[in-house]
Amino acid sequence: MRDLEWFQNLNQDAETKIVLLVLDGLGGLPAVTEGLTELEKANTPNLDDLAFQGICGLHTPVAPGITPGSGPSHLALFGYDPLQYQVGRGVLSALGIDFDLKHKDVAARGNFCTLGEQGLINDRRAGRISTDKNLELCALLQEIKLPGIEIFVETVKEYRLLLVLRAEGLGADLADTDPQEVGMKPNPPQALKPGSNKTAELLRQFLDQAQQLLADHHPANMVLLRGFAKKPVWPSFEDVFGLRSAAIAGYPMYRGVAKLVGMEALEAMDDVGMEFQTVRERWDDFDFFFLHIKGIDSAAEDGDFERKVALIEEVDAYIPELLNLNPDAFIVTGDHSTPSTLGSHSWHPVPVVLWSKHCRPDDVKQFGERACIHGGLGPRLHAVDLLPIAMANAQRLKKFGA
Amino acid sequence: MRDLEWFQNLNQDAETKIVLLVLDGLGGLPAVTEGLTELEKANTPNLDDLAFQGICGLHTPVAPGITPGSGPSHLALFGYDPLQYQVGRGVLSALGIDFDLKHKDVAARGNFCTLGEQGLINDRRAGRISTDKNLELCALLQEIKLPGIEIFVETVKEYRLLLVLRAEGLGADLADTDPQEVGMKPNPPQALKPGSNKTAELLRQFLDQAQQLLADHHPANMVLLRGFAKKPVWPSFEDVFGLRSAAIAGYPMYRGVAKLVGMEALEAMDDVGMEFQTVRERWDDFDFFFLHIKGIDSAAEDGDFERKVALIEEVDAYIPELLNLNPDAFIVTGDHSTPSTLGSHSWHPVPVVLWSKHCRPDDVKQFGERACIHGGLGPRLHAVDLLPIAMANAQRLKKFGA
Repeated sequence: MRDLEWFQNLNQDAETKIVLLVLDGLGGLPAVTEGLTELEKANTPNLDDLAFQGICGLHTPVAPGITPGSGPSHLALFGYDPLQYQVGRGVLSALGIDFDLKHKDVAARGNFCTLGEQGLINDRRAGRISTDKNLELCALLQEIKLPGIEIFVETVKEYRLLLVLRAEGLGADLADTDPQEVGMKPNPPQALKPGSNKTAELLRQFLDQAQQLLADHHPANMVLLRGFAKKPVWPSFEDVFGLRSAAIAGYPMYRGVAKLVGMEALEAMDDVGMEFQTVRERWDDFDFFFLHIKGIDSAAEDGDFERKVALIEEVDAYIPELLNLNPDAFIVTGDHSTPSTLGSHSWHPVPVVLWSKHCRPDDVKQFGERACIHGGLGPRLHAVDLLPIAMANAQRLKKFGA
Repeated sequence: MRDLEWFQNLNQDAETKIVLLVLDGLGGLPAVTEGLTELEKANTPNLDDLAFQGICGLHTPVAPGITPGSGPSHLALFGYDPLQYQVGRGVLSALGIDFDLKHKDVAARGNFCTLGEQGLINDRRAGRISTDKNLELCALLQEIKLPGIEIFVETVKEYRLLLVLRAEGLGADLADTDPQEVGMKPNPPQALKPGSNKTAELLRQFLDQAQQLLADHHPANMVLLRGFAKKPVWPSFEDVFGLRSAAIAGYPMYRGVAKLVGMEALEAMDDVGMEFQTVRERWDDFDFFFLHIKGIDSAAEDGDFERKVALIEEVDAYIPELLNLNPDAFIVTGDHSTPSTLGSHSWHPVPVVLWSKHCRPDDVKQFGERACIHGGLGPRLHAVDLLPIAMANAQRLKKFGA
């Protein structure tokens, strides 16, 4: 079996650097039949040149036909099989805001939402309230006390919050209270395994009190919870791959998943230029840079084809500056596809280009979905295989067997 | 899981023959940016015709990004998953010189080497001493006696030797004494598990005496050991695939790995023409021929791009003669890539063509790395899947399920 321990025995020291540039939600679809995808339409001379010099393909983040969440898709890019290394969204939210989660804690991602008549959900995001409003309401909810446990209610951003329950003997096998649909009532907390019955009861008490406290704070008059989870214990990225690694990402979620495998999350910044500048400034301090660009996915989730095109073009302009740092292996890809025609994550394979002095060139001359089908990485590369290929190109893997 | 027992139940008798022609280290890289690889540059009208008529692709010997040793890469071509069937180099060396290894033996591959001042290794191959000199020195080392065990010191070729310790209760979980770098001292024998402590102590005594005996035999004044291993017990190739099989190879290592799965290793010969002639002469005696050509890899390991090209062209000339024998399935591939620009085995996928009356043609018209990306076998075929495909083309696999 190829597992992380296997790579731990194969990695070797080298004075080489690897960059993984993730354009969130990169893969797309044509807006009209026979039209071009967002990436194909974008004018990307630098990415095209990278494709010409490097090796291209499309990767499957989790499995064929599977639409991945951001956690699993990033774990795959980090070389961790997302079917083996599963983590709840609550844990990722906690890590993303630097909340010091303990292994006994149960964490959940929360949304402030709007309940209308008869307690039905009108808006799962409470009109996207401001972060300031969120801070005020979290302070209110922090007043809730329950016997025998510590409760933490933390602002993430806009309508998003983190709830953490801390006590011995809590279980995280709990159904989401967020039905992820409007026009329905929130689900009552429910244990999926007997070991989580006590936790479900505590959550019922918490949510009852929360609803009373928020009653006069329309549109944020209730909280929806999902992704209950405990922090897992995994081998670290540095131990497995021998890479001192930095994560550069503007959005808490992505710093969170990077920190979960032990990467150092550098200061958050929400500006593409500053992210690239940070790579340059910290170039000597790390062997591996994970650089995450969020805006492309957000545009696609908003169904904004042209904004997605424009943001891809914006990133393209920074490629030469990165190549000037002389990385030994440089991957540009997405964590998953987000076609703006669908307005959501999708199952479609994700374009990827790997550039290195030692990669074997293919015939691909343009970085786009159709062109990448014909690349040397193939049209269905398992995402988890990308990092080992980059490691090989950076000459950081020993020979297997004699 | 598809394991070897599964194929054992699926194979069926047929009057058909399969040939596996392995050009060691076949895959390459361009010498200059945008240039041609060795195989692409070689003038190979016969291999190109085979590609035109057959089905092409690139195979991954072990796993993406993994540079395979010769043992694992050949086991994969024989249909044995190299992650499941692992074997040490010592065992392969023993089999390759027809040494009758017992299951209780511990075998190691040895190099005569040159120690310089302060006991540092100057040359891991002792100036590539002659095989005659090796025979003389092995006879000297064969004089070493240790209580309670039998010791065998056997010449392999040039600077290479085989050491076998025979006694009940020996362990083979031992670190290499060969640091595989010059400028360092040999490592002292060291057990990796308690069951090998006794063996490590015996090796220390052996090496102390060896150093004394070799002191005046500069440049071969010491021995380095690696790949300590015992002979594994595996299902045989004939039992699994129902093929009476012959291995034709000039180099001990490859006859060794073939014998490990129970193939009959025919007389060693180091001449390409004689190898092909042997296939012709023994055509009626076997169902499966594994034909191994070593020189291409040696040229690439020497960094000699043009010699690799010339040797590929030399093999190309023998292809019509092999086709005249009317094989039912004929595979031409490498065990791994050895780009002459790197001068070592590499992780790059390996070109493969499969010819048979029953294979489905693709659009590939040239046998080369870029062209094979577009072949019907795909750019990332798992090497272990090749043999079953050849079996199918030779109509030697039954239908699965009703």
